Amino acid sequence: MSDQNPLFIPGPTNIPDRLRNAMHIQTRDHRAPDFVETFAPVLEDTKKVFGTTAGTVITFPASGTGGWEAAVCNTLSPGDKVLVARYGMFSHRWIDLCERHGLDVQIIECPWGAGAPADRFESALSADSGHEIKAVLVTHNETATGVKSDIAAVRAAMDAASHPAMLFVDCVSSLASMPFEMDAWGVDIAVSGSQKGFMLATGMAILGVSPKALDAMQTAKLPRTFFDFRDMMGANASGGFPYTPPLQLIYGMRESLKMLFEEGLDNVYARHHRLAEGVRRAVGAWGLELVAKSPDLYSDTVSAIYVPDGFDSNALTDQAFNQYGVSFGIGLGEMNGRAFRIGHLGSLTDVMVLSGLATIEMAMADLDYGVELGSGVAAAQEYLRAGNSASVKSAA
Amino acid sequence: MSDQNPLFIPGPTNIPDRLRNAMHIQTRDHRAPDFVETFAPVLEDTKKVFGTTAGTVITFPASGTGGWEAAVCNTLSPGDKVLVARYGMFSHRWIDLCERHGLDVQIIECPWGAGAPADRFESALSADSGHEIKAVLVTHNETATGVKSDIAAVRAAMDAASHPAMLFVDCVSSLASMPFEMDAWGVDIAVSGSQKGFMLATGMAILGVSPKALDAMQTAKLPRTFFDFRDMMGANASGGFPYTPPLQLIYGMRESLKMLFEEGLDNVYARHHRLAEGVRRAVGAWGLELVAKSPDLYSDTVSAIYVPDGFDSNALTDQAFNQYGVSFGIGLGEMNGRAFRIGHLGSLTDVMVLSGLATIEMAMADLDYGVELGSGVAAAQEYLRAGNSASVKSAA
Amino acid sequence: MSDQNPLFIPGPTNIPDRLRNAMHIQTRDHRAPDFVETFAPVLEDTKKVFGTTAGTVITFPASGTGGWEAAVCNTLSPGDKVLVARYGMFSHRWIDLCERHGLDVQIIECPWGAGAPADRFESALSADSGHEIKAVLVTHNETATGVKSDIAAVRAAMDAASHPAMLFVDCVSSLASMPFEMDAWGVDIAVSGSQKGFMLATGMAILGVSPKALDAMQTAKLPRTFFDFRDMMGANASGGFPYTPPLQLIYGMRESLKMLFEEGLDNVYARHHRLAEGVRRAVGAWGLELVAKSPDLYSDTVSAIYVPDGFDSNALTDQAFNQYGVSFGIGLGEMNGRAFRIGHLGSLTDVMVLSGLATIEMAMADLDYGVELGSGVAAAQEYLRAGNSASVKSAA
Amino acid sequence: MSDQNPLFIPGPTNIPDRLRNAMHIQTRDHRAPDFVETFAPVLEDTKKVFGTTAGTVITFPASGTGGWEAAVCNTLSPGDKVLVARYGMFSHRWIDLCERHGLDVQIIECPWGAGAPADRFESALSADSGHEIKAVLVTHNETATGVKSDIAAVRAAMDAASHPAMLFVDCVSSLASMPFEMDAWGVDIAVSGSQKGFMLATGMAILGVSPKALDAMQTAKLPRTFFDFRDMMGANASGGFPYTPPLQLIYGMRESLKMLFEEGLDNVYARHHRLAEGVRRAVGAWGLELVAKSPDLYSDTVSAIYVPDGFDSNALTDQAFNQYGVSFGIGLGEMNGRAFRIGHLGSLTDVMVLSGLATIEMAMADLDYGVELGSGVAAAQEYLRAGNSASVKSAA
Repeated sequence: MSDQNPLFIPGPTNIPDRLRNAMHIQTRDHRAPDFVETFAPVLEDTKKVFGTTAGTVITFPASGTGGWEAAVCNTLSPGDKVLVARYGMFSHRWIDLCERHGLDVQIIECPWGAGAPADRFESALSADSGHEIKAVLVTHNETATGVKSDIAAVRAAMDAASHPAMLFVDCVSSLASMPFEMDAWGVDIAVSGSQKGFMLATGMAILGVSPKALDAMQTAKLPRTFFDFRDMMGANASGGFPYTPPLQLIYGMRESLKMLFEEGLDNVYARHHRLAEGVRRAVGAWGLELVAKSPDLYSDTVSAIYVPDGFDSNALTDQAFNQYGVSFGIGLGEMNGRAFRIGHLGSLTDVMVLSGLATIEMAMADLDYGVELGSGVAAAQEYLRAGNSASVKSAA
Repeated sequence: MSDQNPLFIPGPTNIPDRLRNAMHIQTRDHRAPDFVETFAPVLEDTKKVFGTTAGTVITFPASGTGGWEAAVCNTLSPGDKVLVARYGMFSHRWIDLCERHGLDVQIIECPWGAGAPADRFESALSADSGHEIKAVLVTHNETATGVKSDIAAVRAAMDAASHPAMLFVDCVSSLASMPFEMDAWGVDIAVSGSQKGFMLATGMAILGVSPKALDAMQTAKLPRTFFDFRDMMGANASGGFPYTPPLQLIYGMRESLKMLFEEGLDNVYARHHRLAEGVRRAVGAWGLELVAKSPDLYSDTVSAIYVPDGFDSNALTDQAFNQYGVSFGIGLGEMNGRAFRIGHLGSLTDVMVLSGLATIEMAMADLDYGVELGSGVAAAQEYLRAGNSASVKSAA
Repeated sequence: MSDQNPLFIPGPTNIPDRLRNAMHIQTRDHRAPDFVETFAPVLEDTKKVFGTTAGTVITFPASGTGGWEAAVCNTLSPGDKVLVARYGMFSHRWIDLCERHGLDVQIIECPWGAGAPADRFESALSADSGHEIKAVLVTHNETATGVKSDIAAVRAAMDAASHPAMLFVDCVSSLASMPFEMDAWGVDIAVSGSQKGFMLATGMAILGVSPKALDAMQTAKLPRTFFDFRDMMGANASGGFPYTPPLQLIYGMRESLKMLFEEGLDNVYARHHRLAEGVRRAVGAWGLELVAKSPDLYSDTVSAIYVPDGFDSNALTDQAFNQYGVSFGIGLGEMNGRAFRIGHLGSLTDVMVLSGLATIEMAMADLDYGVELGSGVAAAQEYLRAGNSASVKSAA
Repeated sequence: MSDQNPLFIPGPTNIPDRLRNAMHIQTRDHRAPDFVETFAPVLEDTKKVFGTTAGTVITFPASGTGGWEAAVCNTLSPGDKVLVARYGMFSHRWIDLCERHGLDVQIIECPWGAGAPADRFESALSADSGHEIKAVLVTHNETATGVKSDIAAVRAAMDAASHPAMLFVDCVSSLASMPFEMDAWGVDIAVSGSQKGFMLATGMAILGVSPKALDAMQTAKLPRTFFDFRDMMGANASGGFPYTPPLQLIYGMRESLKMLFEEGLDNVYARHHRLAEGVRRAVGAWGLELVAKSPDLYSDTVSAIYVPDGFDSNALTDQAFNQYGVSFGIGLGEMNGRAFRIGHLGSLTDVMVLSGLATIEMAMADLDYGVELGSGVAAAQEYLRAGNSASVKSAA
């Protein structure tokens, strides 16, 4: 019966009926006019979500990891140097990908729970007087720690160092949920996917690519075919695809964009912030701590929460799943056993959030956490409810 | 976005994906073998839910009200006397139906919140020495007041009076959610529908009919065609339907029965009881009162709850709907403005129930009910959570 | 695998994906504003399909047979005289219904294959100088014989006789497929259903009711509750329903009306005519005969076709179903064994029609009908294909 | 309305309702036991379709092209020599992929319409005394020309040359539709996808990998991350995925395998052969020629058909689509304008095939092909119908 309970993993997210129906289509001919008329506007409209007019949107039938690989392979050559800060599982994985593809990865190690260190980026870039660093890679929203980084600050650091490196940003778990300004922030490649803020099934990597990154494509020597921007852009130019497209997801994207624009992107962001803050009020009421080290780092799409010393976060998420049929995010990497995560992104309501908080409270009680039942729920209710002027509810 | 929030009206209920998919079929030929192979076992298996082996299951493409009309028209003649107790909106409506069909209705008036008065039935029947009363009509679960009546006691009263009247029971909002024993209780016609315990869309009236009621069919003079048992049973005998059947609902019923039997009827009843008790603990914590007058009358499918004096229950359900996108049952008839209802039947989980309680608490806070946020949720959590030995959870 | 083959029964029809998705909704609160905003326009828009501005649209969660019962019960009293012509299974059933409800039915017997005899109606009405006849009942499209009757001619006959009887029309298998002009034809009650021209699942009887019929409602003495116009119209006035509405079907109706209006009703009718004519060309090529006696009677929604002497039409439809997985209409009543039927209504394309013709040709060949394979298909292709100026294709 | 017409592109194929429903699920937690219990058996059962017990099944959220890239990257190193025959668009693309990934591609040019030249493979391999050729790449079913190659013969040629190269086979448009014997044929990597014989949406590359290919994985130096067998197999070992899995497709695969096994793989192959032969009979009746040069090369999943001299095949497929709403495959590459294709794979019935033939006949008539209407349909009917002993119908 668990399909009826919302899930609180930080993506893939709960899929609203409207989008499930949009993806529930019969096969159509992807070489027919109907496809062209659907796909081209999807690419164009997705730019608004990336916050770009100058950039190009490119999609692949793949997961976000495939999107990363596409970003790297299309713009870099073996031996190229890239600069990355490691502060969570997803920045870690991106480093691994670069190394496997023969890049020279300069790593800035940061504690998990920290965000992108703009100042250390600036130092590193300033020190790179030969401009060997070709790209700076940043995870906008580190899904493992619930940390949102300040991309504008990274761009400012790069500018301060007068460094020509490209800026690549992983926004898989932030796009369409938190403000993203590709043009304003000078992002060269932004990598996202269908299964988070777009509220769809997994299966489409979605990239925003700047003119500068497209130029780099001409000289990049890393091999690629499936992920080649050139083939994709060539086919996209006439509304086509270089191979079989993920039809159902493309129709889903069309409807997802409609939903996002109907609600209004600013309202979408405001809603995510409200719900996230509701969760954080509950965490505070429980006396627990977020992995994110300071309020400016708090993610509005996922909260990673330390369990008290002596407790195993995996036992907690297991209890929630096995006893109550609700999925929460487990602690990944360094956080395994130490923190659990509440995903609060995508198509979510106050009521759904409260049900998640009520569930995890019961699981904590079952495991003798000493948390008072109803305490977190009450703190969230107080924040979320209509009478609270601090919490401005968008018209949903 | 409200499709993602559960709803807490006492039916139609939340439809699980599995049943929505089962009803999502293309048209099939209802004169083909596939239909026969589907429909005949559905009729047979539904008997188990009614608790009958001697009876016959008859369905019509109609709502529960249509089921009542079928019960009356197929067994009674104009001027026939029936005995009914009025203690809520649905018993009231049944009386109205009988009167419109020219029956002589002997009404026992009871306060709303009371159940079927077995003792007064016995007196009335004993007084009817000429056996003019042809049928006793009882609402098993009065949806308007959240009152469950004791059908076995009514049967005992009839037996004590040695009265041959038939016993008709409205189990629309109880069947497949609370124990029902048609044969053991000597019920002659039990009337239910697809949209409550069977977790389907509205559109199918489902009746259990005893051999005695079938005999009455031979002499009944009330006119009927659409609802005629004879046509329906004649067609059903070879797996057919006398007119176009509600195909999607019949395939849905097949899957619904599978789900009920997989969980086990006893487990289904136990789950409903647990969840209902969770709701009642919340009501207690809020300091509110149930309309049902005593614990033996508490319904496990719906709770009707008085709002405090000076408050308007409609304002409360409006607030829950408009502000939080969650539907609760309004107060019906005498209870309009005085009580709201929480439906807790069908495909429901602990987590869904808690989300409803959290929502109505916020609405109460918004309207200055003086209810402490989280208090009802906490009481329900304490009861529902794994550690509570009083609450035995079935394997769902 | 038969769900992929179209079916050619004369209703329920093939349901387009768009409508299946529209009906695939989660339960919503039928007492909430969303329902009111959906249902009221559905009632209003359906008037256009009936061709009425003066009339009222009333729906019940029932089949078409329920719609007939509603028509009769709400306007007539026991002993009232009605005039009906019997020329097929559905007119026969309507007579049966009237008799069971205690009406005095004056029957004009016509051969199956004939249409409504306007001249004989005129004679009968002229002879009824006392105006005892309260209603004339006509089947617009006799689904059993594939005969379309001329309702305007019936109205003219009534007018010529200066008779005040009401005119009730069964348009179950014609509405939304063939032109229907309730106001222009002076129809007092038109009875239809969701599962034919509206391309939905079975489960909603849909009636158009004239002001004159509403007046008759005040004096009608036949008992009714479930089908009572008064309760339904009272609840509808504020967008509600007197009992639980068939929610999924109502949302389906909304989308069905959108589809019909997008295509344009005139284009819908033209498409049905084209496809029907394509079928008739095939019948001619096979050397078979239609049950309908003359071209003016040919139905555009269903063709009933005599099998040659010595053949059993049931063996033919069985062969088509068992061997090829395609359902055709069997011969009903007098036509059982003598004729089979091809339904060609609802959401249908040229391609679907051709597949049906190809299938029945194979079945005929299997049973040694002496029909040349491909002959009927070729005749239909010749008519339907783009180059044929006689066949004007609407923009679909 | 075109969703109701079948489509005749050679994949993605028509998706049966059962599989659309199977993919129509809500998001579930891919780290939960339910996923593990679903995914592991899917991998295991898919082996049966590949015809392997020794091999391993590996899937990626990608298209078939991604599957090719995975095959190459995981087993080869830059500069490695591979042997490929080019006889169509898909062998051409595979060559292109190898070249882009820095492989040394030895190409055997063959005319389009030919199959894999086992004898020329043997010569080339025999000449490669230094065993520089690391892999032989063969397209089992060339979708562009409707040519099926004899993989067993290629294996025999390799054995005759005593050559240790690996054998990679593209079976994207043949697997689950035509017999495939990975073990018996000594195939080292077989590459397929979800959207053809598996009747699902596009989005999953599906590979069968031999122990020998897994060994090659250890020394392969081509960079890969998203497509890395090692990560995937590591995660699969415990039922997991190295990144977000395409959940809906995996549940779809489970149901697809059930359908295939219920019908029986041999019956599935026999059905494809019957339907393909039906199409070929029609082609013969039209007096047209297949691109495939000889009967042993005829594909049972797609037929490429030359249009007569002076005609443009694109005009034909456009006419079919624009006028009749039916999609056929266009001519690809060398065949563009010269041939059209009829896809006849996946979930298809006799009736669907006949509708496609009837449609293309009308389009040919519209464009003055001089083809007699009904002629191809009749030839196919004659072959497909029950009475024809040459066409053995499996129990579907």
